[in-house]
Formats: sequence, structure tokens, C-alpha cells
Amino acid sequence: LKAALLLVGNEILAGFVRDANIVLAARALVPRGCPLTRVEGVGDDVDEIAAGVGRLAAVADLLVVTGGLGPTEDDVTRAALARALDTELVLDERALAQILARAEARGLPTPERVRWQAEFPRGTESVPNPVGSAPGIRCRIGDCDVWVLPGVPAEVEAMLPGLLATLPEPAAGISYERLVATAGLNEVFVAERVQGSGFRPPAGVQLAYLPSPAGVRLRLAAPHGVAGAVLDRAAAELRTALAPHDLPTSTPAEALVQESTRSGTTLASAESCTGGMIGARITDVPGSSAVYLGGVIAYANRVKSERLGVAPELLERHGAVSEETVRAMARGCRERFGSDLALAVTGVAGPGGGTPQNPVGSVWLAVADEEAIVAQRRSFPGGRETVRERTVNAALVMAYRRIRGILE
Amino acid sequence: LKAALLLVGNEILAGFVRDANIVLAARALVPRGCPLTRVEGVGDDVDEIAAGVGRLAAVADLLVVTGGLGPTEDDVTRAALARALDTELVLDERALAQILARAEARGLPTPERVRWQAEFPRGTESVPNPVGSAPGIRCRIGDCDVWVLPGVPAEVEAMLPGLLATLPEPAAGISYERLVATAGLNEVFVAERVQGSGFRPPAGVQLAYLPSPAGVRLRLAAPHGVAGAVLDRAAAELRTALAPHDLPTSTPAEALVQESTRSGTTLASAESCTGGMIGARITDVPGSSAVYLGGVIAYANRVKSERLGVAPELLERHGAVSEETVRAMARGCRERFGSDLALAVTGVAGPGGGTPQNPVGSVWLAVADEEAIVAQRRSFPGGRETVRERTVNAALVMAYRRIRGILE
Repeated sequence: LKAALLLVGNEILAGFVRDANIVLAARALVPRGCPLTRVEGVGDDVDEIAAGVGRLAAVADLLVVTGGLGPTEDDVTRAALARALDTELVLDERALAQILARAEARGLPTPERVRWQAEFPRGTESVPNPVGSAPGIRCRIGDCDVWVLPGVPAEVEAMLPGLLATLPEPAAGISYERLVATAGLNEVFVAERVQGSGFRPPAGVQLAYLPSPAGVRLRLAAPHGVAGAVLDRAAAELRTALAPHDLPTSTPAEALVQESTRSGTTLASAESCTGGMIGARITDVPGSSAVYLGGVIAYANRVKSERLGVAPELLERHGAVSEETVRAMARGCRERFGSDLALAVTGVAGPGGGTPQNPVGSVWLAVADEEAIVAQRRSFPGGRETVRERTVNAALVMAYRRIRGILE
Repeated sequence: LKAALLLVGNEILAGFVRDANIVLAARALVPRGCPLTRVEGVGDDVDEIAAGVGRLAAVADLLVVTGGLGPTEDDVTRAALARALDTELVLDERALAQILARAEARGLPTPERVRWQAEFPRGTESVPNPVGSAPGIRCRIGDCDVWVLPGVPAEVEAMLPGLLATLPEPAAGISYERLVATAGLNEVFVAERVQGSGFRPPAGVQLAYLPSPAGVRLRLAAPHGVAGAVLDRAAAELRTALAPHDLPTSTPAEALVQESTRSGTTLASAESCTGGMIGARITDVPGSSAVYLGGVIAYANRVKSERLGVAPELLERHGAVSEETVRAMARGCRERFGSDLALAVTGVAGPGGGTPQNPVGSVWLAVADEEAIVAQRRSFPGGRETVRERTVNAALVMAYRRIRGILE
């Protein structure tokens, strides 16, 4: 089975909203043996949407369309779907009743525009929306099963289970992919390691390298499905070839939370240039509250002194971006929070603030535990966002490795 | 001029990496009067990429392709471009010299696979990459100017200026868009307000509603360009119609940093369920260091007591998610950090932790300043990520409004 996704909306094409629906749809569909093979994005234009629906329905078994079901004049996906189906819009009384009941329960007005959301192309069926006002639409175009969902990711997430329930169950023991994450190894090195180990993917399995700011990940994909044990064995071989740069999970934050939980190590964080991103990333992981106590965002130097105990003279002498400061931040954080381990970062994320000694991208990271404080200086290329993102990942990986006993 | 974007990579289609290149390309191209009118995403497959290049080059004046230029076997965009151009790959000696020099400077190995990155379709030209190893490729297909860039967003960002330099300068005084952001108003209410005000977009200008977790934004787009003053006037009319729900910038964090800077109000944050996201969002804004001092991530209750001074008896009696607790967090944060204003949030982001009294999505928010502490209870639908995201935005908007004097 092949799936396609059509993203509808000027907010995507004009760059005002960063798409989140490709990830949601892909992560739901891959394990069901129905991967996305093509994605398209078009603006809020009846002709463009109708043409996109036609193009994708011709090449996919399942087409998911997201966006353009709202109550405003520029929400024209319903009209476009009617055009693609060569039919007209008709009011769906059941959908209208749902929309009005939901609006009433939430105290929202129900002008004519709200009723538009219950106008579906003739012959299509409505799909309940448990978290938003606009119902979805399901229909067939040729051999393709078409699902039209609202564009808001939370609504897509809530409505995907209904779609998945209509797909055939995968055969027992059959899997479609495994992922092996790595950290701190350039793509060239990763490829050399894998090649050097003599690794060959099993029959029916493809190996792909997925670069990301968190590190290179390797994906074993079996488009037609193979025994899960075959994929497990291949993933284990890859991890052996890449150790100790392999991660047991798909992200550094998950690896850290898993390893902290396993070992009973509590965590705290002290962040300057990342401004809270390390805490945010750790607490993204459900269950992190069992190990993560909290942290200090020490953006101003005064906060580094008053809230983390970094001596003002030390800051004065060595500067905020220095080994001495990051060590004092990690020590002070661990003491004050009473955690087993503390992470600390301080750096120059840019665009301003660079000096000859510490140009933009210069970052000091430290991990403090009962035994020692380990500090590292890194220099990250790129703009503010990239520097912050790479700093967060480097800190999470340092802490993970420290708990694993592979960082000294 | 019409632009199109082709995203290449299994990491995108399989949902392992959330695309960031649509936003980068769109935000660079719109102000130059060359908006994206179609986006496609395909996997690392020579046939799929070549077909995508052909489809998009036929409908756009400018085609940007990102991804698949790396050094591994699954990086096949070069071969696909050669197929689309019906030519062969040849080694570009100048590009190879650059690649080898960069690898040497960084101590990276240069196996054969690295040299592949200098193999370009005959007749194309290489584009320097200031931050990564793979050079880009430029060529023409029919009337379309084609730029192939690496998939890593930091590299796309670094290489886009070279592309923009080849586009015609916009005529003096001509603009292509304005944005009006709102907060806290449902899309239906926003549309009713705009319609009720009698607003009509000027000739050549389209009004679009862009829903996002941060609030509904209105976009005035002039695809063929109009006088900037015309757009400014229309944007001002919209803001008047939407006041006091309008924001002066495109995001709540920018609005808060701008208003804090203007009024000289320093900020600190105390976060429970958002785990650092409020600090992260504020410090995303360049220049935020002038007003944001820092904060406490008080994930564990013990941290709320020890680091923010929330009395353990109060926590015991009212619970962590309560008006009493959020008020004490805001007060304690403001006192300890010595900031003019403090934001505090505590809530149940899920998936676990819900109770009959505080089901998942229940959040208390507070803003403390010299005069008072204002607290609000909110109930957000959706999963963990959505609840956290909406909590962050609600807190930022509360603080912005408090400084503006429109929250009591």
C-alpha cells in the first residue's frame, strides 16, 4: 500500500506555520505497512487543490488531505474536493447538528460561515472530529481511499486513529522498520563504520542515513514487511558497529530519560544560552517527572550568581562563557537541587555577543555528578537556532553517556 | 514569478525529521515577489526525484530542491538531476578541491564517497556551501531556474542569500505582504470581527486567515505587489477591528519582548508543566537578554518549595495545580529574581496525572508585577504537546497584555 499526503494552506506555503502533519501522518502509517511515498503542498486555491487531489489519488492507495476545512472564505478544500469529484456541495444535517452542538457547548457564535463546514461534496461521508469544529470527509476517487482532515495538527492526531482502523492489520510478527540513532558522529564517519563492519542489510530491507541536528540516524526499512526478528538482528548489528556512538532510543532526550530512570539518577539543569530548551526537551518525554527535578534558566549573569552560586569574581575574571563558569553552574545546580546529576551550558548563540575569544557558536557544557564535573568546549556552526539546538543535543548526550559510564 | 520547492529525503517522508525548509524558502522568497506556489516531497529514489523535478520545473519559474546531496549511497539527487537533464555525472574539479580542503581543515576522512559530492550533471554549475561539505547545483530546465541545495536547514539558510541575489530587485516602495497577529480569539470570532468592521481588502490584495497554536493570524498578500503604504493602511484597519486582541508582532514571544523592552520591564519565569518552554520561547527572540533575566523550572514539588518559596503546606492543601500554588510561584519568582514581572504556570499536560478535579489540559497561569498577581485557569484540549504549546502562548500573551495595561 502506498499513501500520499496533500497539505493545503497559504499558512504553510507562505512560511507562517511550520508543517507538523507530515510527521504525524508518516509515523502513523509506516507501522501499518502503508508508507507515505509522496507529499504535496498547495495554497488555498480551488483549482490547485483539486488538481493536487487528482494527481495524488492517481498514484496512491490512500490519500490524506489536511487543511482548508475551516469557517472562513479562504477555506476552500470542500469546494475543491467537489470539483475533483465532479459533483456539488450539499448540506450534511448530521454534521451540522454536531457542529452546532459543539459551538453551543463552548459558547461560540454560529453564523452562516460555521454552517459551511457541514457542506460536503455529494456522496462523501463525514468523519467525526473529537477536538475541533470541522468534521473530516471521506470518499473514493478511482481506487484511492481519500480522507480530508482539518489542518490543525492536534485535530489530525485525534482523527488518525479512525483512519488507521480501516487499514488491514499487519500480519503477526511482521514489521516495517527499525531505527538506530547515533550521536556525535559525522555522517561520513557513520557510513565508514557501517561499511567497515561488513554490514549488509537483509533481503527486502533498505538502509538509509537520516541526518538531523540530533545526530545521524540509520533506518532499516522493509517496504513490504519482513519478520520483526530479522530487523531486530540487523539493528543490533548496526549498534555494535557504531558503539559507543549508538543511542538506545530515537532521540538524546529519550535516551537520557530512559537511562536515568533505569539507574535511578535524578537530574537538574542550569541553562544560559539555551534559555530553558534542555528542560523543555527532557520534559517532552512522558514519564520524565520521575527523574527530572527542574532547573534554573540563568540568562543574566546576576542569576548565575544569585541562583546558582557562581562567584561574581569568577564571572568577572573568566567571563560567562568559560570552563570555570560552566563548572560552577553545574556544581551549584547539583547542590541546590539535590539531584544526582546536573547539566550546565553557557555559550554565545548569536547573532550578537561574539568576541574574538568566543565567537558566535562557542559553547561550554558540563555534567556534574557525585564523582566529578566533566566539561567540554564545543564550537557549532550556523545561526542562533542551530547553535541552540546543537547545544541542547550535545548536553543531553553528555549526560546520557556520563550515566552509562562512557564519558570521562 | 512563481517558485516551487521539492523536498527530497526518506527522513522527511518517513516522519523522522520535521521539515524546516518550507518555512526558510517561503520567508526568503515572498518579500522578493516570488512566492512558493507548490511544494512536493519525495523519497531518496532516482525516478521519484527526477519525476518531481520535471513536474515542478514545468510549472515554476524558480525551483528549489533540498536534500540528497550527502555522501552516502542513499543520496541520489545528483543522479536524479542528471536523469531529469538527460545527461551524465562528471567530476567538478573545483568543487572537489573545496570539499577536500574543508574536510582537511576539520580533520574528516575523505573516502571515495566524499568525492561523489563533487560529481555534477554535465553542464550544471556548482554553488558554494559556506557551512557544510556538499556544494549545491544550479542549472536550467526549460524556462525554470533550478537550485539544488543540501537538506540541512542551516545549510539552506546559508545558501539562500546567493539565490536571492539572482532575483530581480523589487520596485521601490512595492511590498508583497503584511501580517496581523491576534491572540486568544477563536477563528470564527476573528472572521466576525473583520466582517463586522466592514473591512475590504484593497485592490490586488487578498486576505487570508492563518490558524496556529499561537492564535489566528491574518495575512494580507499582494501576489503582484502593491505600494507598501496601501498594505500598511489595510493592516492598521485590521488591527483596529481586532483590538485589543491584536499583537504588534507575528508571535506572542516577540510581542512580549518588544513591549518589555519599550517599557523597560524585566522578566522572569517559573514553569512547571511547560518545563522551560516559556524561557526557550522568550530567548528565541534576539535581544531578549535586555529584559529576560531567567527563571526556574519547578518540575518537582520540592523545587516549587525550595526554589520558589511555595509553602509545602499550601502545596499539600491545594495541590500543585491550583490558583494558590500558581500565585505563590509567581510571587516567589518575582521576589527571588528581582524582576519587574514574573510569569508562572502549573498544569496537567498529560498523558498521565489527570484527576477528576484537574483533568489533562487543566492549567493555572499567573502574572505578578508590582501592583498585583493576576491568575487565570484554562482548560486546553489535545495531547501533551498541544497543551504545553497552548500554555506557553497563553502565558506570553498574559504578560504582554499586563504590561500594555489591558489585563486586569
